[in-house]
Amino acid sequence: MSYRLCVIPGDGIGPEVVPVAVRALQVLLPDLQVEHAEAGWACFQRCGQAVPEATLERMRVCGAGLFGAVSSPSQPVAGYRSAILTLRQTLGLNVNLRPVRSWPGVSPRDDVDLLILRENSEGLYSGPERMLDSGHAVAERHITASASEALAQRAVDVARMRGAERITLVHKANVLPLTCGLFRDRCRVVLAAAGLEDQVDESLVDVAALQLVAEPERFDLLLTTNLFGDILSDLACHWSGGLGMAPSLNWGQSIALAEPVHGSAPDIAGSGRANPLAAVLSAGLLLRYHWRQPALADQLEAAVGRVLALHAGKDLGTATLQQLERSLLRQLTHPQSD
Amino acid sequence: MSYRLCVIPGDGIGPEVVPVAVRALQVLLPDLQVEHAEAGWACFQRCGQAVPEATLERMRVCGAGLFGAVSSPSQPVAGYRSAILTLRQTLGLNVNLRPVRSWPGVSPRDDVDLLILRENSEGLYSGPERMLDSGHAVAERHITASASEALAQRAVDVARMRGAERITLVHKANVLPLTCGLFRDRCRVVLAAAGLEDQVDESLVDVAALQLVAEPERFDLLLTTNLFGDILSDLACHWSGGLGMAPSLNWGQSIALAEPVHGSAPDIAGSGRANPLAAVLSAGLLLRYHWRQPALADQLEAAVGRVLALHAGKDLGTATLQQLERSLLRQLTHPQSD
Ligand SMILES: CC(C)[C@H](C(=O)O)[C@@H](O)C(=O)O
Ligand SMILES: CC(C)[C@H](C(=O)O)[C@@H](O)C(=O)O
Repeated sequence: MSYRLCVIPGDGIGPEVVPVAVRALQVLLPDLQVEHAEAGWACFQRCGQAVPEATLERMRVCGAGLFGAVSSPSQPVAGYRSAILTLRQTLGLNVNLRPVRSWPGVSPRDDVDLLILRENSEGLYSGPERMLDSGHAVAERHITASASEALAQRAVDVARMRGAERITLVHKANVLPLTCGLFRDRCRVVLAAAGLEDQVDESLVDVAALQLVAEPERFDLLLTTNLFGDILSDLACHWSGGLGMAPSLNWGQSIALAEPVHGSAPDIAGSGRANPLAAVLSAGLLLRYHWRQPALADQLEAAVGRVLALHAGKDLGTATLQQLERSLLRQLTHPQSD
Repeated sequence: MSYRLCVIPGDGIGPEVVPVAVRALQVLLPDLQVEHAEAGWACFQRCGQAVPEATLERMRVCGAGLFGAVSSPSQPVAGYRSAILTLRQTLGLNVNLRPVRSWPGVSPRDDVDLLILRENSEGLYSGPERMLDSGHAVAERHITASASEALAQRAVDVARMRGAERITLVHKANVLPLTCGLFRDRCRVVLAAAGLEDQVDESLVDVAALQLVAEPERFDLLLTTNLFGDILSDLACHWSGGLGMAPSLNWGQSIALAEPVHGSAPDIAGSGRANPLAAVLSAGLLLRYHWRQPALADQLEAAVGRVLALHAGKDLGTATLQQLERSLLRQLTHPQSD
């Protein structure tokens, strides 16, 4: 099998962290064919489009992509929409997979290993917004059976891969019985059909948010809607060491786009101090879930773990991107060294 | 001035914790006139209404209330709606004030002192939900200038009372530019008109959720919409020692209803082990913000602090409600004792 990767560095630190992840992937997949495409704010300013048609085309051809980060204008600009939202929606990347686990040296605790599966196509992200009058705005939250079932179907797959013992459906059905009720019920049907009903429980989103802070070790697989998943995955990544260690995979039926959760961090762009590990771990999600190479993904994560262990005690923030890259590539090529 | 309080114990541990808070209030306000009203699931089963008209009437007459907690049926029941939502909406309790602070012995850190002002009347809580077809549901999120301005107006008041140095507007305007944009812009106008523009900053809700976990000490006053406030206040109360220490005030123009954030906890109801301090602190919010008796509120909070300090080292969970009440009343009447 030959692997193709469409690289979309984007703005800010994107072009700094993405090449590190690509070089790590190339160690594990020597035949990887890398192509480049553009998206984001600089791209919009240059060509009037945040996601040019050529980029979508490249993604479709490659089937796999690695996205860096994009900036946004501080005030809304006509015609501009966040590039990542356009990519998710146009390419049908309907599930967002966000693992959170403890890492040596950077995590505040060592017992967290959970995975959030966030619905990635609807909810408050797809519905239209409109002004009823100048002092009254309304947004729509759409939830469908098909998107909920597609998420749960992916959860079945992931649950088998990781031998999940607990699958928590997170919703707010006490206030939103129709939308959240539909989501919950359809997830339950799919999970039950796969014989997983004994593992399933549920939690209200406010309760889940508190438990993710107080007892994160109790979670295994979490399934939730788009905006809840956005909020919960950000707060949970505290346990993996913060946004610098938070990977994600925008995961469609035949196309997947890996994306570090962090933003373009204009304040540190160019300083050589960006942490590339979220991008590296995102590439690892491509390996594990999209290309179905769990052994290679394990290798990559083990290398990241050793890099962090070597830095333990020192502040990761004092390491430069170059040092981390060198250390990572050494661990990948000579796992016993240092 | 004579003070009247409408007491609504509700279900589960509500009738256990509320009397403790009432007795504490009576020490500080010997003339307090206490009246009783009912609401909740048991009330619904008895009389077919979760919030009888007589309860609303009692609240209007008293102007101040203390709500315990209510249970909900596990499956939706026709005609039943959460009593607290009905009370908030029918009585125009348009702001929900939720302070989070460190307490000796029970808080994981000692430097947190923040206050969340949650819009309490609209957002995803007020809009209708409907099924477009059996596999497609939609909810509406309504945001109005008037509700946003009313929240910000309260924030001006609170900011002056606590000498707030930082006011953070929490939204998701990058995805919801119209609804969240309206909220943010109207809050800014009101805060600026009060001369507070230099204290104001903003944060996306996902970023704020992570920061509330990672650096809660950096927050002072947070303003946000209804559901975001629900989620953020639950997760933040980890820092005050969890739901057992989380008070709130549903705060309208002329009526206020104090409410511990915890639920009816049917699993421990009747065991004598419920923690009454969230109810007590909620009563303290009535004193401070509704009745404008900050000195009495300080007295009450100081007494709670001493009770906790006396228990420090021991697990608060092993103290009974009776012990905590005795200790609290002793601290209120003889502040130097023990
Ligand atoms: C940039 C923003 C639109 C995006 C989102 O809200 O999904 C981000 O927060 C994320 O989680 O990937
Ligand atoms: C019980 C529920 C309807 C309520 C809410 O969502 O507002 C609760 O979570 C709260 O925060 O007071």
